[in-house]
Amino acid sequence: MKKLSIADIAKHLHVSKTTVSFILNGRAQEKRIGREVVERVQKFVDEVGYKPNPLAKSLRTGKSNTIGLMVEDISNPFFASIARLIEDRAYKNGYKIIYCSTDNDTAKTRDLISMFRDRHVDGYIIAPPEGIEDDISSLVKAGMPVVLFDRHLPNVSTDFIEIDNLFSTYNATRHLIQQGYKKIAYITFANNQTHMLARLEGYHRALGESGYESFVKEIDFNQNDDLITAPIAAFLKKNKNLDAVFFGTNHVGACGLKAITELGIKVPTDLAVISFDDYDVFKLFSPPITAIAQPIEAIADSVITVLLNRLNTSSQHISSQSIILKTDLNIRRSSKTE
Amino acid sequence: MKKLSIADIAKHLHVSKTTVSFILNGRAQEKRIGREVVERVQKFVDEVGYKPNPLAKSLRTGKSNTIGLMVEDISNPFFASIARLIEDRAYKNGYKIIYCSTDNDTAKTRDLISMFRDRHVDGYIIAPPEGIEDDISSLVKAGMPVVLFDRHLPNVSTDFIEIDNLFSTYNATRHLIQQGYKKIAYITFANNQTHMLARLEGYHRALGESGYESFVKEIDFNQNDDLITAPIAAFLKKNKNLDAVFFGTNHVGACGLKAITELGIKVPTDLAVISFDDYDVFKLFSPPITAIAQPIEAIADSVITVLLNRLNTSSQHISSQSIILKTDLNIRRSSKTE
Repeated sequence: MKKLSIADIAKHLHVSKTTVSFILNGRAQEKRIGREVVERVQKFVDEVGYKPNPLAKSLRTGKSNTIGLMVEDISNPFFASIARLIEDRAYKNGYKIIYCSTDNDTAKTRDLISMFRDRHVDGYIIAPPEGIEDDISSLVKAGMPVVLFDRHLPNVSTDFIEIDNLFSTYNATRHLIQQGYKKIAYITFANNQTHMLARLEGYHRALGESGYESFVKEIDFNQNDDLITAPIAAFLKKNKNLDAVFFGTNHVGACGLKAITELGIKVPTDLAVISFDDYDVFKLFSPPITAIAQPIEAIADSVITVLLNRLNTSSQHISSQSIILKTDLNIRRSSKTE
Repeated sequence: MKKLSIADIAKHLHVSKTTVSFILNGRAQEKRIGREVVERVQKFVDEVGYKPNPLAKSLRTGKSNTIGLMVEDISNPFFASIARLIEDRAYKNGYKIIYCSTDNDTAKTRDLISMFRDRHVDGYIIAPPEGIEDDISSLVKAGMPVVLFDRHLPNVSTDFIEIDNLFSTYNATRHLIQQGYKKIAYITFANNQTHMLARLEGYHRALGESGYESFVKEIDFNQNDDLITAPIAAFLKKNKNLDAVFFGTNHVGACGLKAITELGIKVPTDLAVISFDDYDVFKLFSPPITAIAQPIEAIADSVITVLLNRLNTSSQHISSQSIILKTDLNIRRSSKTE
């Protein structure tokens, strides 16, 4: 059956399309349309089960109750948990979330932003890759609510939620030093974004204060975990004098544990271990791994609260806010000397 | 700057809106529009950088190059990995994926299907919850390409991709029996969908063949992992005569390992362990856990191939296909007697 249009209804009832449209959009009274006509249109619409085209409606009202969420990689447990919580919170507030992975790839992100714009999302939540400044700025200038999380773009004025990365790694490195470890390596992905630079800086600062040497190994990201595990194993094999290692992300940490297991290194007697991001792999490893837990629920709550605030405020002139959340250092057996 | 409309262009160049529209939609020749006019319009459009409204275009052409993907829970590593691979494959074929979690909740799923329809997706990939038969049937009847995965709906005729659940648990249970285990429990979520019923059946069949007693514990799903771990711990504490346990999903398995660790149960000497779904938690546990690995890449490939086939075939009359993929039993130390 062909879908009925407003024109069909108008023709059938011998009234104008404009009249039908006003009635269906609840503007009959405002437009002083006679009660008899209103009832006739509504009765017919009920009978035939006419439903307005929501995409056309969204074109007209400019409101879709949909939020676009862009994470780096949905298969990363950190992003998967955050996405899930954001989706829950948004749904309870009448918004649906549609999400995508950027792969931290600038061109793909640009493409996805444009897809979300085409789908008429009401707002954006983005863990931005490098090089996307201009695109985000354009969105913000166009009056689009945009909330960044996990990292921010120093030259773009928009809301963002981050954790205190620098203090987190500083504090965790201090813990290793207090436990008596002196040769502490930091293994991380090669990445120049705000969050990763801050983590590296926190490590350097703690070592510098104690006058200890730093050993940094940067790994190029690869979709294939074996190509992350192998360079970590090579690094650990070459640097047998290390007494502790700090992994800069959950992904590096999981691959690091594979390398440690393959090499038969005993934790913590041969090597103490700490990682950024806490999850099941670290909790269930033997011994359990000391880890920096991001406040995932608080991040999701803040992201949604800030975005809903923007969506519900007509003025574009509220100044942008940044929220910096604290992490927890969950100390476990992997980093304790006694 | 106000966005230019077709009406603005028409006014500026003193031609009709219809003419501009035909030119922009590449129908100038078909509509016999003079070359001079075509060039004038195209020159102006290039100069001002006019871009057609893609949502309006999608209304007109009915094509969005977007696919809606609905998983049960994006924070589950199985669904997160699948979603990620499907997204990759689709992107390489010119399609964008927008995804959502259903929570295995029928009402939410219905709501999301309608949201995807409003956003004009070209096709659907769904891990369907119970009770959604009618909604999926409506989509299929309306000529929408729909591919189900992970489980199927026996009363709905559409494409689906599944694994051989029954043989997978039969085979894994046989492995435990061959290793000499006799009191084998099966712990799973209470769920009546095709995939979960088949897994339970495979376990029963293997035990039945050997004349062994079955011990099934069904847990109600809960967002809070502690409320999954606690009943598993209680069950294991109560049934000290068990010599092996088989976890029916990765989620049950991870919570089961927490229960085992809390109770101080030694694997495999006190209790052998096997789980459905293989991932880092099982690989890195000490001892490593024997697990049934789903062919995640093959599932993603099949889902996309079948859907693209549907999208590129104008006929709705190709009959629906079901693809059943094999799993791998990765035998590790958690289930070996010697």
